[in-house]
Amino acid sequence: MTEINNDLLSVCKRRGFIWPSFELYGGVAGMFDYGPLGFSLRNNIVDTWRDVYKGGEGFVEIDSETVNPREVFKASGHVDEFADLITYCTKCNLPFRADHLVKEFYNNPDVLTPKELDDSFAKHGISCPECKGRLGPVEEFNLMFKTSIGPGSSRVGYLRPETAQGIFVNFLNLYRYNREKLPLGVIQTGRGYRNEIAPRQGMIRMREFNMMEVELFVDPEDKDWARFPEVADQKLDLVPNTGEEAITVTLEEAVEKGIIANRVLAYFIYVTKKFLTRLGIDESRLRFRQHLSDEMAHYAADCWDAEILLSYGWIEVTGIADRGCWDLSRHAQFSGTDLTHFKKFDEPKEVECDKVKARHKALGPAYKGKAKAIADALEAKNPSDVRDGKVTVSVDGEDIVLGSEFFEVARAKEKLSGERVVPHVIEPSHGLDRIFYSVLEHAYSYDSKEDYTVLRLRPEVAPIKVGVFPLMEKDGLDVLAQRIHHDVHSHRVEAYYDGAGTIGKRYARMDEVGTPWCITVDYDSLEGPQKGTVTIRDRDSGTQKRVAADSVSTVIDALLGGKSFFEL
Amino acid sequence: MTEINNDLLSVCKRRGFIWPSFELYGGVAGMFDYGPLGFSLRNNIVDTWRDVYKGGEGFVEIDSETVNPREVFKASGHVDEFADLITYCTKCNLPFRADHLVKEFYNNPDVLTPKELDDSFAKHGISCPECKGRLGPVEEFNLMFKTSIGPGSSRVGYLRPETAQGIFVNFLNLYRYNREKLPLGVIQTGRGYRNEIAPRQGMIRMREFNMMEVELFVDPEDKDWARFPEVADQKLDLVPNTGEEAITVTLEEAVEKGIIANRVLAYFIYVTKKFLTRLGIDESRLRFRQHLSDEMAHYAADCWDAEILLSYGWIEVTGIADRGCWDLSRHAQFSGTDLTHFKKFDEPKEVECDKVKARHKALGPAYKGKAKAIADALEAKNPSDVRDGKVTVSVDGEDIVLGSEFFEVARAKEKLSGERVVPHVIEPSHGLDRIFYSVLEHAYSYDSKEDYTVLRLRPEVAPIKVGVFPLMEKDGLDVLAQRIHHDVHSHRVEAYYDGAGTIGKRYARMDEVGTPWCITVDYDSLEGPQKGTVTIRDRDSGTQKRVAADSVSTVIDALLGGKSFFEL
Repeated sequence: MTEINNDLLSVCKRRGFIWPSFELYGGVAGMFDYGPLGFSLRNNIVDTWRDVYKGGEGFVEIDSETVNPREVFKASGHVDEFADLITYCTKCNLPFRADHLVKEFYNNPDVLTPKELDDSFAKHGISCPECKGRLGPVEEFNLMFKTSIGPGSSRVGYLRPETAQGIFVNFLNLYRYNREKLPLGVIQTGRGYRNEIAPRQGMIRMREFNMMEVELFVDPEDKDWARFPEVADQKLDLVPNTGEEAITVTLEEAVEKGIIANRVLAYFIYVTKKFLTRLGIDESRLRFRQHLSDEMAHYAADCWDAEILLSYGWIEVTGIADRGCWDLSRHAQFSGTDLTHFKKFDEPKEVECDKVKARHKALGPAYKGKAKAIADALEAKNPSDVRDGKVTVSVDGEDIVLGSEFFEVARAKEKLSGERVVPHVIEPSHGLDRIFYSVLEHAYSYDSKEDYTVLRLRPEVAPIKVGVFPLMEKDGLDVLAQRIHHDVHSHRVEAYYDGAGTIGKRYARMDEVGTPWCITVDYDSLEGPQKGTVTIRDRDSGTQKRVAADSVSTVIDALLGGKSFFEL
Repeated sequence: MTEINNDLLSVCKRRGFIWPSFELYGGVAGMFDYGPLGFSLRNNIVDTWRDVYKGGEGFVEIDSETVNPREVFKASGHVDEFADLITYCTKCNLPFRADHLVKEFYNNPDVLTPKELDDSFAKHGISCPECKGRLGPVEEFNLMFKTSIGPGSSRVGYLRPETAQGIFVNFLNLYRYNREKLPLGVIQTGRGYRNEIAPRQGMIRMREFNMMEVELFVDPEDKDWARFPEVADQKLDLVPNTGEEAITVTLEEAVEKGIIANRVLAYFIYVTKKFLTRLGIDESRLRFRQHLSDEMAHYAADCWDAEILLSYGWIEVTGIADRGCWDLSRHAQFSGTDLTHFKKFDEPKEVECDKVKARHKALGPAYKGKAKAIADALEAKNPSDVRDGKVTVSVDGEDIVLGSEFFEVARAKEKLSGERVVPHVIEPSHGLDRIFYSVLEHAYSYDSKEDYTVLRLRPEVAPIKVGVFPLMEKDGLDVLAQRIHHDVHSHRVEAYYDGAGTIGKRYARMDEVGTPWCITVDYDSLEGPQKGTVTIRDRDSGTQKRVAADSVSTVIDALLGGKSFFEL
């Protein structure tokens, strides 16, 4: 932990942004609650994300359950693969993440196998960090929280490690909602769970966390994107997996040179950059790093992490991946359900293929009145249905086995109006808590000479938009201030009334939590040439102006809409 | 299930409001996912609730974790009390809710003890409903989903059965945030979990559900409410627990006559009524029923349920309770932490009490330089610290045992500036899914002659605010319609573009999902005297008007702001 973490986390706790959970009962590592200011800030981030995807891209939002039956995560691979390696001390029984114990000896200890870790403990003489006891064998520890659904011979359930699976298992419902068209963009925000062995790094690694996930289903043969030309000239800071060097290129170049796999992926990398910088992330401390080949899931066509430079180092906050057909193929396979898109050809295609053709001349005499029905049933069969030269058809509930005297397999031409394809998935997946924390760290500014903290939060995300103060709580100053507070305050534009302490202290309280503007009602507001006006103070410049008391709500709306304080 | 449930649930599923969860894997009873329209409707309900409590009442919102360590629910009573009675068939092993098996013999089978249920099975000859096997002994089944936090000698965790505990365990943080003042109003929305034995009744009884809870901490000796006079004359339909009869009384009368325990509780019963009717709940199908004495938690001073008449009968959707000091007292007791409010007296009170007084004349000679420190430590003690005529004080890290020659216990007068009190809790707790379903049922209207469904959702909650159609998808009609869609659509004001099928069918699609207005671009929009105008159609009256194409966004905002369609 660096100094900035400590200072910032202390502000966060003291002022009601985040609180370590269950402190009353000794706390639980890797869990945090959002206090009033934290919740509002987080909610503003979610709202901005909705504006980008639901408003701007026209994607739809769903909300699926957090407890899932085992089948879902068997198909997704989490039951078998979502694990860290663990070792227990044979003396004190404490558990440890095995790769953490050897991190000084390897660049990438998390790729080591249990056997390699066992050997490494022996080679480097590693024992229990707590009691120096002998470490037990390294084994897998599945990171899903496990539970039971219902009583008795109950179903095994897990808390979802990601919200994405709730979208994949609803693919058919969503596809029908979208009137069987692609592209189909779906978003979901909510809890994810990861039963960490030893959570560290504050809000960076939580056992219960919040995600904002986007799953975009596209035609596997069309990874262009209609809006790509709008952003083709924009620049990205990329760290490709071919070398250590960061490069700055336009989206167009990145795709042309094959650095980013395709246009739709590049477009959403850029959307992610726009989103994060809109929240207040410093562009110069944001980069996109391509997954190394041993880091990338085997099914992923390409994957990039948005990384933000924090006091912890470069931290991944968002993954943007082309997951190919993996998710839908797996759920189709495990559920035995067709999860494909019917892709119409621009015009029907004539194809040559083998077909089963009925021999009408043989069927007629042999089957009389049933011959027509048998012929139809035969021609509905595929050549692969022919076994040992025979085909079985079912007519009126009766199975009839037909020898080759009744049919032939012959080359034929057929008109196809389209084909079935498994959609590919483009997934921008955001870690909400990490983004929340990054926004705070990049907004945090501390003047050690003055011992003064300012959170330079963007107005759009600031939890409190305006502080409202009477100079003194008397002489009617408080009455007018309360009226203004009442005018301005809503659940979307939060105002904070404060009548206690010096005005300087009240400004400081608001600066510390990132409130962009403060209104003060003074004696000039009540009489004299300035009667009916109040001061408005801008957090970042410290400048003050006078505006009409009755216009405060309109002024704040205009400022939130992007108007400059200096144009007031 | 009545007809309306089936029809409505079929519309809900087909049009993307709610989907039974995990259908791909056979489904899980008591779980539902929210599709695009359902999510938007639900989110609009949450937003209205925020407007009421965060905007209107100035309460603060937090978000706490869903997985909690056992200690929390030991204190809250859920570990010991949150259970249903279960019996397993001794032959087929199927589990059953014991009280459901005898419901034809008792009015209130859920108050029976396990012994009474066992006896009842014997008396009435009740066997397994599935295989007629003998039923095993009735036992308790705790309804919390259980899990483990972390590996190894892990901590037992439960999925929270309510969001309220996350507020109670954060009381100290919240109290400090509120600058140690009461009243303190806190809201939280999120998941609750209840591992039902046999979920039934669609969205009424879910295993994973959504809540909107409000916890208002008040001075136990002051259950008045500043805003009560604003609503004192408003009427409520009440079913008190003194008889079967429903009565209609003003809030003032209800409190005066002792029907509702106090003003703050009455105020929030009324706030609940306003909230539910604002969402579109039919006032004539809404009532408030007081808990019967055997239904009410033993600690509750008073408790009322908002009940809505649905096709299932009267269903509880919200509980409004005066929970007294129960929650904070229990957490104080189990955590050993002081969770009180320091209540300042208007002016200091002089009280007489026993005090420990130092005998300075004896201490001086005996302890010399230390005498002053010992005297101070002595006088900080309470009479209850005297054991066997001796008191132990700690001075400079040294424990000193003092006999009665060094102190006396005497009656003394003391000025107290205030006292510590345990805040009482007023809790309006909403079942979000039940409210969501009730809003749909009260909005649902089906014309069987025309086979035509309209959801008469209030514009504020309707998932789609406006449909935008080109008469035909050609001749530039589609270009203008798309431009209008782009102008209007945002994540808060959702617009739906539809160019397929007859206009009548497109209206019908929008009526079926409750869209209040539709815009159509026709040939008159492009040329002639009406050029530049489009039609706007009102769902509930079927009336159409023409408005300027460029003003559609402004017109929709005005309508959402409450302007009448007929004043356009």
